[in-house]
Amino acid sequence: MLQIADTTFHSRLFTGTGKFSSSAIMEDALLASGSELVTVALKRVDMKNHDTDDILTHLNHPHIRLLPNTSGVRNAREAVFAAQLAREALETNWIKLEIHPDPKYLMPDPLETLKATEELARMGFIVLPYIHADPVLCKRLEDAGTAAVMPLGSPIGSNKGLKTIDFLEIIIDQSRVPVIIDAGIGSPSDAAKAMEIGADAVLVNTAIAVSGKPAQMAAAFKLAVEAGRMAYEARLGMKVSHAVASSPLTSFLDE
Amino acid sequence: MLQIADTTFHSRLFTGTGKFSSSAIMEDALLASGSELVTVALKRVDMKNHDTDDILTHLNHPHIRLLPNTSGVRNAREAVFAAQLAREALETNWIKLEIHPDPKYLMPDPLETLKATEELARMGFIVLPYIHADPVLCKRLEDAGTAAVMPLGSPIGSNKGLKTIDFLEIIIDQSRVPVIIDAGIGSPSDAAKAMEIGADAVLVNTAIAVSGKPAQMAAAFKLAVEAGRMAYEARLGMKVSHAVASSPLTSFLDE
Amino acid sequence: MLQIADTTFHSRLFTGTGKFSSSAIMEDALLASGSELVTVALKRVDMKNHDTDDILTHLNHPHIRLLPNTSGVRNAREAVFAAQLAREALETNWIKLEIHPDPKYLMPDPLETLKATEELARMGFIVLPYIHADPVLCKRLEDAGTAAVMPLGSPIGSNKGLKTIDFLEIIIDQSRVPVIIDAGIGSPSDAAKAMEIGADAVLVNTAIAVSGKPAQMAAAFKLAVEAGRMAYEARLGMKVSHAVASSPLTSFLDE
Amino acid sequence: MLQIADTTFHSRLFTGTGKFSSSAIMEDALLASGSELVTVALKRVDMKNHDTDDILTHLNHPHIRLLPNTSGVRNAREAVFAAQLAREALETNWIKLEIHPDPKYLMPDPLETLKATEELARMGFIVLPYIHADPVLCKRLEDAGTAAVMPLGSPIGSNKGLKTIDFLEIIIDQSRVPVIIDAGIGSPSDAAKAMEIGADAVLVNTAIAVSGKPAQMAAAFKLAVEAGRMAYEARLGMKVSHAVASSPLTSFLDE
Repeated sequence: MLQIADTTFHSRLFTGTGKFSSSAIMEDALLASGSELVTVALKRVDMKNHDTDDILTHLNHPHIRLLPNTSGVRNAREAVFAAQLAREALETNWIKLEIHPDPKYLMPDPLETLKATEELARMGFIVLPYIHADPVLCKRLEDAGTAAVMPLGSPIGSNKGLKTIDFLEIIIDQSRVPVIIDAGIGSPSDAAKAMEIGADAVLVNTAIAVSGKPAQMAAAFKLAVEAGRMAYEARLGMKVSHAVASSPLTSFLDE
Repeated sequence: MLQIADTTFHSRLFTGTGKFSSSAIMEDALLASGSELVTVALKRVDMKNHDTDDILTHLNHPHIRLLPNTSGVRNAREAVFAAQLAREALETNWIKLEIHPDPKYLMPDPLETLKATEELARMGFIVLPYIHADPVLCKRLEDAGTAAVMPLGSPIGSNKGLKTIDFLEIIIDQSRVPVIIDAGIGSPSDAAKAMEIGADAVLVNTAIAVSGKPAQMAAAFKLAVEAGRMAYEARLGMKVSHAVASSPLTSFLDE
Repeated sequence: MLQIADTTFHSRLFTGTGKFSSSAIMEDALLASGSELVTVALKRVDMKNHDTDDILTHLNHPHIRLLPNTSGVRNAREAVFAAQLAREALETNWIKLEIHPDPKYLMPDPLETLKATEELARMGFIVLPYIHADPVLCKRLEDAGTAAVMPLGSPIGSNKGLKTIDFLEIIIDQSRVPVIIDAGIGSPSDAAKAMEIGADAVLVNTAIAVSGKPAQMAAAFKLAVEAGRMAYEARLGMKVSHAVASSPLTSFLDE
Repeated sequence: MLQIADTTFHSRLFTGTGKFSSSAIMEDALLASGSELVTVALKRVDMKNHDTDDILTHLNHPHIRLLPNTSGVRNAREAVFAAQLAREALETNWIKLEIHPDPKYLMPDPLETLKATEELARMGFIVLPYIHADPVLCKRLEDAGTAAVMPLGSPIGSNKGLKTIDFLEIIIDQSRVPVIIDAGIGSPSDAAKAMEIGADAVLVNTAIAVSGKPAQMAAAFKLAVEAGRMAYEARLGMKVSHAVASSPLTSFLDE
């Protein structure tokens, strides 16, 4: 089973709450997904009246842990402020960091994300940062006390799947914290692939929410994630391709 | 549910019997796969003593239909002869045609395969030919009375996945008989992808047989095929990318 | 230098005449390309008045050999008839076979193409058939007396590049006649790639004709083809990847 | 023509000096490449006797500008020190930053690279940093005064080509400084592709140095880079795919 900080997860499929046509449809889909960690954008929540907030009400299930995210903030300072608000209103110290200053491509900012991770970890938060698939940045976040890393598979909303796979493999090989593939996963086969290369979990939102039948698509992702994980475990021991690839890399090194 | 000729299948995962380390391990894996159609090479069966043949004994389950294949034949004449032997010994008129004269790359022969299909269909066989992902050949096989088409995803044993996907999409779009992706499917994510683009079934052998844990890998493929099919059905209606792509094709035509 | 039948070519970039906005622009581009073999659709030529035909007049250069093509025919019979017309009107026994019965995807028909090749070769034609990237069909065409094979890189007009590369490598490895990659080459980098894997030549039309600056794009393709060929020759001896790949293929064979 | 800082380059092919079997072979290849900017690792140069250093002697051509690089340093402090040494010994204020603390995969460190860039730019250096294909980091480097950005195509020495292309396109779209694709370019077709998507230049070393015929391979890269650039310019105006892609991205944004 997957462990992040002190929490154990049976499901390796994390989900989001955006773009569903209604909160009832969202709830159906999230239940069908079996997801135990669901991210919700703070900016979409009525934090003053969270008891009656439409989204939060539909997420009120004992097996679902909320993962507030900071989507919309532009730097570390705003992110830390948002995390504190979330902790107070939602009574959770888990926070998904999303800092993307650019409004067009929504690519994450490595510097501000690292800075916010350092500060929030010091403050006792369980930090899950959304980042580019940058292996060195992942190690830096580890040093800063991150609870997991969430590298992107491809640009948000592009549905292009695992375009960063060569780097994800390096990240997975090196990481001491769980690796959760975020962004770009457009179909169950993408999710299965992510698990097959050894990711600890995936986060899927758009592909479920915009499907013609969100609950059925969510169930499909559930099966695909399980299939990918089973395959990863069934082939452990023969996963030599990566190790083999790494020695040519170093042999080319001493330029 | 999937129908081929007059038979209905609950499972869209077809399997093979080669390369398992023992017949007992094979049986465990095939049962875990849920597969209802299992191909076996005639050349590996003791047809004179099929009641005691080691492989056949382990395939003797009510939900499993045998699909003898002609692997090893070099032309239509040999294929027809092999099919007749199989019908007599195994009491089935189902036959998987495999005609690959070249011993190095095992690529199927389009001409001999079409010829054998024509003849065997006339003789009352249910023919499932293994072929290159050639859209026009698939239509010709339909005209010849084939029960299904089995285009390859990539060269046999290459584990390269769906390298022919651009052509598989055309085949699926045009076919009036079931399309079963054969050869090259190396992981559950490949199988899920094949189902997501609308394949009716996949045939997987090597990836299961050579896994460290064949039964677990078979179960992983089972889930992945279900996931891919569910996703295909959940997104029906928004699958516009293919239709859109087809019009630029024709616009480039009148050279 | 490249030899096809008894003719030697300095340029490995073959071109076409379709989709140019004017014949003058076409002529400029073809001269910039350095191409010595230019295909022209018979259906677009005024064969009764070929001396004054607009297209043919602009192709009238000593270094350019005409390659009439049969685009539009639906079967071998029509193709043979078209080839005979072309021989009479254009005084060449070179013919590019294009037989694609389907008007939507324009995929070539392997059976009719083989039949027409057999017949035309017997009649003394220099036959260059446009085909799917089917390794066995290529060998059959060789046996039938083809002068070269022209496998497609991806569906015509798709600009998708070398989607069939795994099969092109097998074809190149096995072929005793020149291999010319046709269809799908959308950019100079695609053409360079085709040459790097050992293709003898490429045929490019759409990507040049629809460019904003056809003559400049033609010159770019000229350089790219030269670059790819030079690279292929410079690395001969270290091209082991293919040979290595071929042994796993056969090891998976004895199902 | 390409301009970096106050220098104009006729050639868009930059090269390196590593892995050649001899300095004479290196010199031949670099002359054949037409390259005007050649990087050399400081750690390989005898800086005390640079007048007689074997590598430097062979690079002594009026059209070649030296680009010392910091390969081997582990952080910003060491990089700044190395740059100062280089300025003194080689009399150039150009410096290629390479900071990769990890000895296995050699992935660049975004934080230390940015820090070194800020400091070196302040000190009057012309800084060209080797980095991951991270669009936000590129903008940060711009703000820090970098002269160009050098995002990687794929892991160093992997010869995998442009695996980061989705991100390179974003970087090119946004950049106000020249974008030079570094690392992973394994063949002329890769180099052509990089230029076709609008890169300002490429840096190639391994693929030339380890070729059977380095001078011929260098000439092939020269042509390919020219071909790619010409194609890029010939199709300007029809390059709509990127712009189209960017709007779905933003539409998915307000989660």
